[in-house]
This record gives sequence, structure tokens and C-alpha cells, in this order.
Amino acid sequence: MIAVRRNKISGQASEPTLRRLPGYLFYLKKMREEGMLNISAPTIGKELKCDPTQVVKDLSVTGIKGKPKVGYNVYELCQVIENYLGFNKPNEAFLIGAGNLGSALMAYQESQTLGLKIIAAFDVDKDKVGTQIGGIHVLEYGKIFSLADRLKVKIAILTTPNNVAQWVAEELVDCGIKAIWNFTLTNLDLPGEIIIENTSMSAFAAVLLRRLNDSIIK
Amino acid sequence: MIAVRRNKISGQASEPTLRRLPGYLFYLKKMREEGMLNISAPTIGKELKCDPTQVVKDLSVTGIKGKPKVGYNVYELCQVIENYLGFNKPNEAFLIGAGNLGSALMAYQESQTLGLKIIAAFDVDKDKVGTQIGGIHVLEYGKIFSLADRLKVKIAILTTPNNVAQWVAEELVDCGIKAIWNFTLTNLDLPGEIIIENTSMSAFAAVLLRRLNDSIIK
Repeated sequence: MIAVRRNKISGQASEPTLRRLPGYLFYLKKMREEGMLNISAPTIGKELKCDPTQVVKDLSVTGIKGKPKVGYNVYELCQVIENYLGFNKPNEAFLIGAGNLGSALMAYQESQTLGLKIIAAFDVDKDKVGTQIGGIHVLEYGKIFSLADRLKVKIAILTTPNNVAQWVAEELVDCGIKAIWNFTLTNLDLPGEIIIENTSMSAFAAVLLRRLNDSIIK
Repeated sequence: MIAVRRNKISGQASEPTLRRLPGYLFYLKKMREEGMLNISAPTIGKELKCDPTQVVKDLSVTGIKGKPKVGYNVYELCQVIENYLGFNKPNEAFLIGAGNLGSALMAYQESQTLGLKIIAAFDVDKDKVGTQIGGIHVLEYGKIFSLADRLKVKIAILTTPNNVAQWVAEELVDCGIKAIWNFTLTNLDLPGEIIIENTSMSAFAAVLLRRLNDSIIK
């Protein structure tokens, strides 16, 4: 996280902006398929329920500027967002922990654009090792060390039980992993240069439930 | 979202605080199992890599106060967090769209504390209707109208394809659903009193990949 704040090179997009960009991309690709050539910020804003000023600001992080009275070229806009997010590159990732959530993500990435490609999964469970989920092989956990080195994989998806997450994450860093997508509830303590994105399902459930309870009390 | 900001009754917890609470709860339950009676904010902070001042602030939203030199009663603390988040109640939810991600969430909730309980899933796919995933029945989508009314379910998990999300969400609201956990990329346009929690997987992937690219460029 610190890495992003220190970096002055590329637009310094805020996290909310980054989170919105895949939504823009999804909509714009649909428009491109429908043959639309140009699109204005108010049109995008209307579709995505977002203020046009916010749309212009969000899209500006990619370096693109709309033309007065014409707007953005749809084709160009799709391309710059994809480039900016790195969705155009094969972002290869390992997945560690082929349990329910891990299996789900493997099956899910087959059908949806996650922006990254899980090329192998690892588990310690002998029953899972050797199987395939969503076309991805589940390998013995111990093999990660040689494979990470050989394949130069930089991204890991952590879907282990909470109680081994810290230990596994440290081993991942030793393997050369630079970014961890953490689905566990564990607050990982890792060197500052490692990128960590926390996506604990129960954290989102907590926000939803509390808001619902607040609205019922009201 | 507006509902929370308007509500002055219950602590007005920020979203980051709400997201951290399940992490506290997970850790505190572990400590409770290990027989710990009291715990201090610095101890919690050290474990969860969080400043003790932040810990005190986060926990205060539940109304609990630590005692000087003693800290918090672990048992009591677990209970107030569970109550606050509503994790102690059977938060029954419907899931709409039993595809890869939907199936995953059904299998996942069996083993993990999501804070809510999926009691039925709905799909339009004839091959899925009638099956069970993680012990949950997949029913014909059309049945949701009578069941929502009869079971008084207020929460829906939306894991449909993006292009039908808005349409399905509007029908959910007509069914009496008050909170939607939206896993699609669609920005739902619904009445202001409906609670929406957006958890698009590719939005998180976008943040992770951009940060990684930033750190490599640096």
C-alpha cells in the first residue's frame, strides 16, 4: 500500500477510482460491440449512476482526454483502461488453498474477466492434489518453491484457512511473490514493498448486515 | 449507503471499522477458546497489526469500554461484536444466480462464518434447478416471489450475469428484499432505502494489479 502512495509516476489513482474502472471497461466494451464510436462523459455517467465530473476525473488517470462535443473514442478508451489496469497482459497468478473459496475462484476465472490468470493451484490435502478445477491443476504445496522461481510468477491468491495464512504468506514472499490477494481474515504482516489486497468475504457481509440493521432500527 | 449516514442511533461506524470487526472477532474467539479472560488494546493491536488507538476506537462503536490496566473481558467483547454486527442472529439470505461464483459462496458459507445463512438459491437454468450445492437447494427463479413473501427474507446475494443484474435487482426489491450483496459489475440503480454492498471480484483485481504495476515501474 505504501508503494502506491510513494509512486508519483502514474496518475496516483485513488482506490475508489481503481475499483470503478473495471465497471467502465465492462460497459464500454458492450458499447464497442454495439458499434458505438464516440461516447460522452454524461452518457457514461448516466449508465453507471456516476456524476459526469467524476467520470472525467476517473478516466483521466489513464491519461486520456475527451474532445469537446465529441467525447471519447470508445475503442481507444477501452484500450487505455485495459492498459492502465494491466488487464491486457497475462497476469499469471498462483492460488494457494484449493478449498471451497479457492475452487470457486478457479471456476469463476474461467468464465469472467478477473484480469488475472490462475496458472496453478497448491494445497496440502492429498485428496485435492492431482485433481483439476476449472481446468487448473492442483499441485502439492511443496512444489510452489521451484515453480515460482521457474515461472517468475509475481501474484498469489491466498485462500488458505486463516490460521496458516501468515505462515504461507511469508513463504510466498520467500518465493518471490510481490502481490498477495488475501481472502483470509488474517492481517498479514509482510515487508512494506509487498502489495496486499484484502478481500475477506465476512468483512463485506459485516458492512451489509450492519447497514441493514441500522436501516431497520431507524 | 445514505441510510447509514443518516442514522444517528448506533455509533455511526465507518466502513473501514466495520470491515475490521470480523477480524477482531475471529482473533478474540480464538483467544476465548484458549482460555484468555482479559485482553488489552495493545495486545489486540499487536496481533492484528493495527494501532492500539485505532483498536479502542473501532471497538468503541459497539459501546464497550476497556478497564484501565485490565483491558477488555474477552467473552463480553466477542458477544458485543457479534451483537453489533448481527452475526448472532440467523441472517437468512437468498442467492440469485447459481453459477460458478454463486455455487462457491454456497459451498463456502457451509465452512466459514459469513455472518449470514443462504437458505435457498434461484436460477433460470433448468440443469441447475433441483440440484443442491453445499446443502442448499437451487430453485426455479420464478418461485422467489412467493417464497420471499412467505419467509420474510430481507437479504439477497446477487451473482447473476452482469447484463441481467439490474432487472433482477428491481424484482428483488418488489419481493421485499432490503439489502443486496452485489457481486456483479453492474451499478445498481435502486430506491435510496435499499442497502447495496458491491463486491465485484474484478474491482479488487484491478486495485491489486495496478498497485503491482506501480511498484514494478518505480
